[in-house]
Amino acid sequence: MSADELPSWRESTARQSILEFVAAVTEPGSPDFVDEGDRVAVFDNDGTLWTEQPVYAQLVFALDRAAELGQPTSLEELHAGGMAALMKLVALTHTGISTEEFDAACRSWLATARHPRFGRPYPATVYQPMVELLGLLGNNGFSCWIFSGGGTDFMRTWTADGYGLPPHRVIGSVGETEFRAGHGGPELIKTAKVEIINDGPQKPSSIHRHIGQRPIVAAGNTDGDLAMLQWTAASSGRTLELVVRHTDGDREYAYDHDPILGSGTGQLLAAAAEHQWTVIDMATDWATIHPA
Amino acid sequence: MSADELPSWRESTARQSILEFVAAVTEPGSPDFVDEGDRVAVFDNDGTLWTEQPVYAQLVFALDRAAELGQPTSLEELHAGGMAALMKLVALTHTGISTEEFDAACRSWLATARHPRFGRPYPATVYQPMVELLGLLGNNGFSCWIFSGGGTDFMRTWTADGYGLPPHRVIGSVGETEFRAGHGGPELIKTAKVEIINDGPQKPSSIHRHIGQRPIVAAGNTDGDLAMLQWTAASSGRTLELVVRHTDGDREYAYDHDPILGSGTGQLLAAAAEHQWTVIDMATDWATIHPA
Repeated sequence: MSADELPSWRESTARQSILEFVAAVTEPGSPDFVDEGDRVAVFDNDGTLWTEQPVYAQLVFALDRAAELGQPTSLEELHAGGMAALMKLVALTHTGISTEEFDAACRSWLATARHPRFGRPYPATVYQPMVELLGLLGNNGFSCWIFSGGGTDFMRTWTADGYGLPPHRVIGSVGETEFRAGHGGPELIKTAKVEIINDGPQKPSSIHRHIGQRPIVAAGNTDGDLAMLQWTAASSGRTLELVVRHTDGDREYAYDHDPILGSGTGQLLAAAAEHQWTVIDMATDWATIHPA
Repeated sequence: MSADELPSWRESTARQSILEFVAAVTEPGSPDFVDEGDRVAVFDNDGTLWTEQPVYAQLVFALDRAAELGQPTSLEELHAGGMAALMKLVALTHTGISTEEFDAACRSWLATARHPRFGRPYPATVYQPMVELLGLLGNNGFSCWIFSGGGTDFMRTWTADGYGLPPHRVIGSVGETEFRAGHGGPELIKTAKVEIINDGPQKPSSIHRHIGQRPIVAAGNTDGDLAMLQWTAASSGRTLELVVRHTDGDREYAYDHDPILGSGTGQLLAAAAEHQWTVIDMATDWATIHPA
């Protein structure tokens, strides 16, 4: 492990614990050695791998698309209407079209949409230190997966470029699709039936279903990730749990609650303290936040 | 492509069309060349990759486990009771325990159970020619996946050894799992709520969800695989569709309907004829059926 691994990380306990863990599970003869096929790492996405403030990118996409479809709504209306209003917005903007049409709509939006504060495309708000971590793990024989509350189809339109992950490694919330003959051949239509909200205790279930192996690395930033980290920590061998803390109001955001849905961080931080999980403090541990 | 690829296949149109397809999509400069990351192949399991007669192995497991649990039932009762009786048997034998306990129960059964006609462990009833095909595709940069109506958790207990496929590439029907604290740490409990019956039009939906890419190779043996083959055939580039026909009563079985559930083959064979898909005739095309 050379000293210039993870160049966007400052010298810190967090960086040191990552490098030390990777060395311990990959060096042949190490008491903690793990076979390559068992090196599974799972990551939350929003707030763990990219910026989720002031509003989830996918929600901005939905609001923009609703306006485009002639049925505009606002964040204020969503806050007032709660989960029912959100599901109505999702049904309007994410369903009734084929997976290929939805893919095209996402890509078209991503090409022009800009983050309101950073003035850059949303995929350029990924965290450079975490992209380097994905690369470090990949280079050391890990398979890295995303388990997010965001929509699978939305994420997959940019995660291949953004993180270098193939689509099957990017798992989120899922609506039912319906197979139809279609005009130009068979197609899958996205329906309004929500199959999985991929958050909280659902994350370990999704991991079991999609990977079928226990992870040995997990990273998250809110209580919605707690079960995923607990599931990982309970593996029989050595594991690494990472908690990203948003402490940097100058360069990113400082907050303790998810935007919109309001998931907190209290349980996660308590578990981190109890089990000595690795807490990443953005303000002090990262030399760079977003890619140049 | 050397002449001793697929050694258990007789010289035949089917073997020739497979070898020709693989060469066409993998040779740099070929007009049909496909990038390695896009070489996705999907296979049905029961009756396509291993013997499903006289009764699905998983059903034998369920009957044996029901007897062990002191609530024996018989095939006759199942036939009489239809889908409701089957679901009751599944609930009794596949749920209410942790994923790890279920895994152990499957492995213990597999270690002693023997196929009634061939006298060998069920995993030794895989089709040697298809195992060779999986190997050929893997050696040529394909990722091979299974999309089966069988249970995901049951299959994954033996498919790594049987086919060399990692668990995430083996997808079947799925019941909900519930995350619980547990005595020895967190566990996932298998519940009686069926989430997905992975058959028919559900197969393309599952492929979209688990892979997120269109396959270019698909193989099946009943009408329950038709949608998967149609979905594959509608890809923009060159594709290969394989239909396994059970024509060999001497060495395996000759039949046109799934055991138990009774899915037919009429629609699949009609589509194969219409679109010139590759039909594999077990009796004439395979020199060997099961591994030595």
